[in-house]
Amino acid sequence: MIGVVCLNPALDITHHVAAVDWAGVNRPSAVYARPGGKGLNVARTLRAIGAEVLVMGLAGGVTGAGVESALGELGVPAAFTRIRGETRRTFAVVDGRSGDSALFNEPGPRVGVDEFTAFSVMYEKALGGCAAVVLSGSLPLGLAADTYARLIEMGATAGVPAVLDAQGEAMALGAAARPAIVKPNLAELEAWAGRRLSTERGADRAAVAAAARELRAAGAQAVVASLGAQGLLAATEDGGWQAMPPAAVAGNATGAGDAVAAGLAHGLVLGRPWDERLRHAVALGTATAAAPVAGEFSPADYTSVLDAVTVHREEARR
Amino acid sequence: MIGVVCLNPALDITHHVAAVDWAGVNRPSAVYARPGGKGLNVARTLRAIGAEVLVMGLAGGVTGAGVESALGELGVPAAFTRIRGETRRTFAVVDGRSGDSALFNEPGPRVGVDEFTAFSVMYEKALGGCAAVVLSGSLPLGLAADTYARLIEMGATAGVPAVLDAQGEAMALGAAARPAIVKPNLAELEAWAGRRLSTERGADRAAVAAAARELRAAGAQAVVASLGAQGLLAATEDGGWQAMPPAAVAGNATGAGDAVAAGLAHGLVLGRPWDERLRHAVALGTATAAAPVAGEFSPADYTSVLDAVTVHREEARR
Repeated sequence: MIGVVCLNPALDITHHVAAVDWAGVNRPSAVYARPGGKGLNVARTLRAIGAEVLVMGLAGGVTGAGVESALGELGVPAAFTRIRGETRRTFAVVDGRSGDSALFNEPGPRVGVDEFTAFSVMYEKALGGCAAVVLSGSLPLGLAADTYARLIEMGATAGVPAVLDAQGEAMALGAAARPAIVKPNLAELEAWAGRRLSTERGADRAAVAAAARELRAAGAQAVVASLGAQGLLAATEDGGWQAMPPAAVAGNATGAGDAVAAGLAHGLVLGRPWDERLRHAVALGTATAAAPVAGEFSPADYTSVLDAVTVHREEARR
Repeated sequence: MIGVVCLNPALDITHHVAAVDWAGVNRPSAVYARPGGKGLNVARTLRAIGAEVLVMGLAGGVTGAGVESALGELGVPAAFTRIRGETRRTFAVVDGRSGDSALFNEPGPRVGVDEFTAFSVMYEKALGGCAAVVLSGSLPLGLAADTYARLIEMGATAGVPAVLDAQGEAMALGAAARPAIVKPNLAELEAWAGRRLSTERGADRAAVAAAARELRAAGAQAVVASLGAQGLLAATEDGGWQAMPPAAVAGNATGAGDAVAAGLAHGLVLGRPWDERLRHAVALGTATAAAPVAGEFSPADYTSVLDAVTVHREEARR
């Protein structure tokens, strides 16, 4: 079983409106509400590829209850610690005329120390049944920046490797706690390195590889940088790797990075060598970007992309 | 106890955003979620003036559960029949820069015949404890246009008078079922009459009075037309009446009509004569329009406006 930690889940509500009146009354032609937040995307992808998962998170209020019941309907097992605050909503309005989307992200609840303690007790017990844990997404208000670091250490004590997908201080402190894999995207890696790693043509592969090696030296056992249509670049105990999707896929990047994290965790649990691990992760990310609904993918796309991904060892070492 | 029927409640979510990016990501500075729908506004106003109320409605899904729990927190007793569909949300975005609001109204659930039957059984039982019922707001999909008419007839059988605040066919059929009071606003009365009742300067009082008498002749025991800042105009068994607020109140009309309906129902139950009934209804509507939050009011405003309302018998009979 793969444990997926989701401390700041969301209910994602989307309204499609034929032609939005931004100063008047609108009647959406379609309304969608689905559980969101990076961790839940990871869990849904893992579930879709047949992995056993357990979502572990914090949920509060009627929105939290909504997230729980929606996950249940999707067949994703979850154990939420109830909190006093109200789980956040995100609200997207898609304007059929312009094609623009406006997104409104609620700040989410503040989590109390006692609530995180209750979560930790549950998490520690659940670790006994986990082959790996994925720690993904933003930390809610009230939790210390070293929260992921502490959860990674608890995993290490129980012999459970961790995949970390976070940003800023939470990623920096988490990486120092020696997770099996850290998965920053380009912007997150640039923020950590404190310098640009790209040109106007996209990611500068040599610069990204250097920063990935530095993040690895800072504690992560492996670093996989996700570069969108430019694929993945990894610094691992087995050297540097590059994995490229077959062609630039026009699509919806939302959730593609989460699908990559899911693929990496799955490969870790299966003991796949790095080339296969990266191949599957790229294929999942690409299939997710190609899907019309954010965070979903077509299994046929996944399979067809899989054979077309090119993976090779990084040649230019510095 | 006053029963308030709310067949299509809502969860009203409001996001305040300093300067909205209608094609990007926004982080609201304030988020409000409160139970909405005209019936719930009526019930909250009745509760605020000390009347005993029972909300009777239909609620489904996690949004329905959210409406129920929010009403509980507000101290408004409610008995909801659970439905399979999901209770609707309304979503308002208030742009701090322009002052504009965009409103997104979900269509709401479709109600099954079996679900309305379950509601009717509950409603019929509850009538035994009601001194009056208020039937307010739109009918959800799936319910026949004569739904309010049937509920009014069930009330009459139990000796419970009804106040009807609806529009279109639901109002027309409902009025024919002889409710104690029908409360259309100007637009609703114009739609029923099939002709304009206003000039560019506002409502044409003589024309409104004539239409109100016609609606009364069509079955309603009394008709009270709410004309916003122009007050109320009533056709009753005790003749025609006009009630005017002290001065044009600039404010938020949302919920003011519901406060008027609450005031009329309260006056009906207390047996107030028409002049006092209308005086209180105008004061509640005016205080609600003056409040910064839609559908709420300051008791001090209510009291101070009460003495300043002018009520007189309609002089021009035709």
